[in-house]
Amino acid sequence: MSNSNFVTNTVGRVVPTVINGEKHEPYKGINQHIPTGFKHAPRVETIAHFPDDGNKQLDSLKSALIKAGLKDGMTISTHHHFRNGDLIGNQIFDIAHDLGIKNLRWFPSASFPCHEPLIKYLEDGTISHIEGSMNGALGKFASQGKMSGTAILRSHGGRYQAVQDGEVKIDIAVIGAGSADCFGNANAVHGSSTSGLLGFALADSQYADKVIVVTDNLVPFPCVPWQIQGNYVDFVVVMDKVGIPEKIVSGTTEITKSPDRLYLAELTAQFCEVTGIIKDGFSFQTGAGGTSLAVSDYFAKIMKEKGIKARFARGGSNKYLVQMLEEGLIDYILDGQTFDLDGVRSMRDNANHVWTSPFTSYNYHGKGNFAQLVDVVILGATEVDVNFNANVVTHSDGYLLHGIGGWQNCLFSKTVILPLPLFRDRIPVIRDEVTTICGPGELIDVIVTERGIAINPLRTDLLEKVKNSGLPIKTLQELKDEAEQICGKPQKPNLGEKVIAVIKWVDGTIIDAVREVL
Amino acid sequence: MSNSNFVTNTVGRVVPTVINGEKHEPYKGINQHIPTGFKHAPRVETIAHFPDDGNKQLDSLKSALIKAGLKDGMTISTHHHFRNGDLIGNQIFDIAHDLGIKNLRWFPSASFPCHEPLIKYLEDGTISHIEGSMNGALGKFASQGKMSGTAILRSHGGRYQAVQDGEVKIDIAVIGAGSADCFGNANAVHGSSTSGLLGFALADSQYADKVIVVTDNLVPFPCVPWQIQGNYVDFVVVMDKVGIPEKIVSGTTEITKSPDRLYLAELTAQFCEVTGIIKDGFSFQTGAGGTSLAVSDYFAKIMKEKGIKARFARGGSNKYLVQMLEEGLIDYILDGQTFDLDGVRSMRDNANHVWTSPFTSYNYHGKGNFAQLVDVVILGATEVDVNFNANVVTHSDGYLLHGIGGWQNCLFSKTVILPLPLFRDRIPVIRDEVTTICGPGELIDVIVTERGIAINPLRTDLLEKVKNSGLPIKTLQELKDEAEQICGKPQKPNLGEKVIAVIKWVDGTIIDAVREVL
Repeated sequence: MSNSNFVTNTVGRVVPTVINGEKHEPYKGINQHIPTGFKHAPRVETIAHFPDDGNKQLDSLKSALIKAGLKDGMTISTHHHFRNGDLIGNQIFDIAHDLGIKNLRWFPSASFPCHEPLIKYLEDGTISHIEGSMNGALGKFASQGKMSGTAILRSHGGRYQAVQDGEVKIDIAVIGAGSADCFGNANAVHGSSTSGLLGFALADSQYADKVIVVTDNLVPFPCVPWQIQGNYVDFVVVMDKVGIPEKIVSGTTEITKSPDRLYLAELTAQFCEVTGIIKDGFSFQTGAGGTSLAVSDYFAKIMKEKGIKARFARGGSNKYLVQMLEEGLIDYILDGQTFDLDGVRSMRDNANHVWTSPFTSYNYHGKGNFAQLVDVVILGATEVDVNFNANVVTHSDGYLLHGIGGWQNCLFSKTVILPLPLFRDRIPVIRDEVTTICGPGELIDVIVTERGIAINPLRTDLLEKVKNSGLPIKTLQELKDEAEQICGKPQKPNLGEKVIAVIKWVDGTIIDAVREVL
Repeated sequence: MSNSNFVTNTVGRVVPTVINGEKHEPYKGINQHIPTGFKHAPRVETIAHFPDDGNKQLDSLKSALIKAGLKDGMTISTHHHFRNGDLIGNQIFDIAHDLGIKNLRWFPSASFPCHEPLIKYLEDGTISHIEGSMNGALGKFASQGKMSGTAILRSHGGRYQAVQDGEVKIDIAVIGAGSADCFGNANAVHGSSTSGLLGFALADSQYADKVIVVTDNLVPFPCVPWQIQGNYVDFVVVMDKVGIPEKIVSGTTEITKSPDRLYLAELTAQFCEVTGIIKDGFSFQTGAGGTSLAVSDYFAKIMKEKGIKARFARGGSNKYLVQMLEEGLIDYILDGQTFDLDGVRSMRDNANHVWTSPFTSYNYHGKGNFAQLVDVVILGATEVDVNFNANVVTHSDGYLLHGIGGWQNCLFSKTVILPLPLFRDRIPVIRDEVTTICGPGELIDVIVTERGIAINPLRTDLLEKVKNSGLPIKTLQELKDEAEQICGKPQKPNLGEKVIAVIKWVDGTIIDAVREVL
């Protein structure tokens, strides 16, 4: 890659403009990149090319991939609702390898440790590169500079945007589903491999050239609800097992027991109470980590005390959120993924637990999205800098070990709060400069740490509200200094020049590049 | 129009190939027209152009139309879920007229007698022509050759297909809804102007350039369920009243009391029993006319006697179908429109009463559709010819007084039965040639009349099954002769040369042209 293919974007990061041979735009600032094109236009189909009786079932995933025209250089997409219990991703590439196919682009909505076996196909050229979150081993492999192509990481909304806009053209989408009918209608709330919903595969179903639904629970037409509409589906395959139920639900489904984390959560809730964010009819999103769950729990306590309720909460849902819905503390859960079986049950049985999609919730290239309507969102980060810029994908040693998820998309909520420990394993979290910028500081309002709360100077309204509140308000610089007094000045990661991944902003521009770890 | 713009299509009808200045294909036979293009690609939007807080409310429909850029020559779409109780359609064109706008194309999913006031705008050039069903006075106006443009009639599925394929580009869609939130999420199951669902506006929401949601029941975000997704919506307007509830539900919601019609219905049900169509797990669609309702009722009796149930019934729903669902005779109602308030209630409260759309149910240019999966469909017709070709739009006097509805789409069901009286007002229904061909005879399997049942010779399986059944099986020619012995040979309508409307087939080709009545 020549230097002429690199530019410095408006957050000061040097990023490539050509990735895997395709041109991309650098980040230009919030709301500065205005699209001028048209949505991706899939081919017009005709029912004349589909079975008269609507039965699209084939005998195996291999048959379906062959009928879908699998060939070298194609883009194959999958969703991650099965999380670390996915049994389909690896099979696709086993089949591709057996067929001698090369140079595939894998476009998962996220990959997990269970996909580590795919490293051999990255090594032998079956897969050229991954575009999507790489949690764990695959991320490490990429960070070591071993992946031949460059990874592209997108938020959930950014992935929808990229498909919708034709930036990523999916040749074959494989959609694993807990239930399906022979026409291809599918959902994730019935069967034994339930994952709650299938929103991460929505764009794939709408825009991919060929769509394969794989299930281990074929039901007679109609499969209701049809979270994926069979009218977008080409082939249906029945397998013994599409996911390992106990690994489908997230690991972090219990409230933290750590006193430090509980304090962070309590302080976050207190902040929301003092500033009037918690009020009748408000809305919130807290996520599924142990600290986040504790925040929900403190919210519930405050709401009960005050006798108020929330209009809606955004999921990832879990038993705590479901309990709030069932107790009448929340009118609606608008859910993007279920993190435990209570979430699945509630989504299946409760009409006020509504499934959403990256289109409704997060698509920056729509006529608005739900994230903008949320009053307060509680998020995590691996690092934050003194200007409130934050990182969620790399660790301070430079390794790319996490996806973006809906994190960037949630930054458009009315108030964004990051409760963060001041240091992890004696490595300070607040830095002069984050290893990777995933979210610009203008959109991040509050950092809550165990030693004080920093409010973004742009939020003069919040600064006003906390006056005389007794809350421990400090600047990020003060918090950073405290951490460094305890842990010392952190070392910079030892990075090479090679770009192993780029981080997209929600509008499709490149906000940062991730370099190999030496 | 020169003669060179007319061709004889494969059902022998002379049809224009240029309509309102645009080229169209003639009908080529079932499954013979294979599309080669790509779906219509709407402009990529950005949330940067929409309110930060998601609130898209404007103060009036006029403001919304002006902000949407209303100007001469545009295409304005509406849906017909309010049926004859619609209060929005006329207001749009009152506003356009006040603004001095000319030459608009009105693209309703259907128009009703309540839209008769629009004749003045067809006369003064505010509206150039209507593309959509014209029930009643507007149809008569068009039939008299008074509309300056040529009407184009499409089935529900054909309308979706035309929008999806970019054959009709909608500039501004106005979607009336019983409930909506300020973001534009909307449904028709809550509020005082409920119409059950909004499927006929789905294509409009997805593909129109600008989308306006109009409601008389604004609810706090989120409006659940979102039958129309706010992410497609530009503006929201609150009005005093969007529909007249008592006129929203259809007039024909009671089982016929006519002994002749009851006999037709009973004979139809008997036929379905004898031929084994009514069996455990079967599916049916009967429609909402008095005879159709009676058929459902006979079906229910047979199912109870036999102790069997249907897997699903397709709506239009009504109290009889809802009762069958509630009694457990049907697993699911897959509904396209609710014909009475029991239908609305059931759809709102019963998860097994599922709303569908012309995309899922009827779109010929999808990867299959639901209509194909229905075992038996009971439909009406104004005329049928000796080759089973049928007419649903014109009367035998040539007047265009009805829309196609889902009729053409339903012809793809496994067995299509038309129960028809042998004559109406002493005018025989079976003709040598129908006034207008809406559906080719190959797709119509059975004609049931009070004097006998005619089975399409193509259906040798059905002919085999009725042997020795005691059912009064005759040929269409025999039935026609009987009618003519009673009523005499019917007169041909007195038609001119001018084409006042064309009838599209489900694939976008022209199956017939309707000429002015002299």
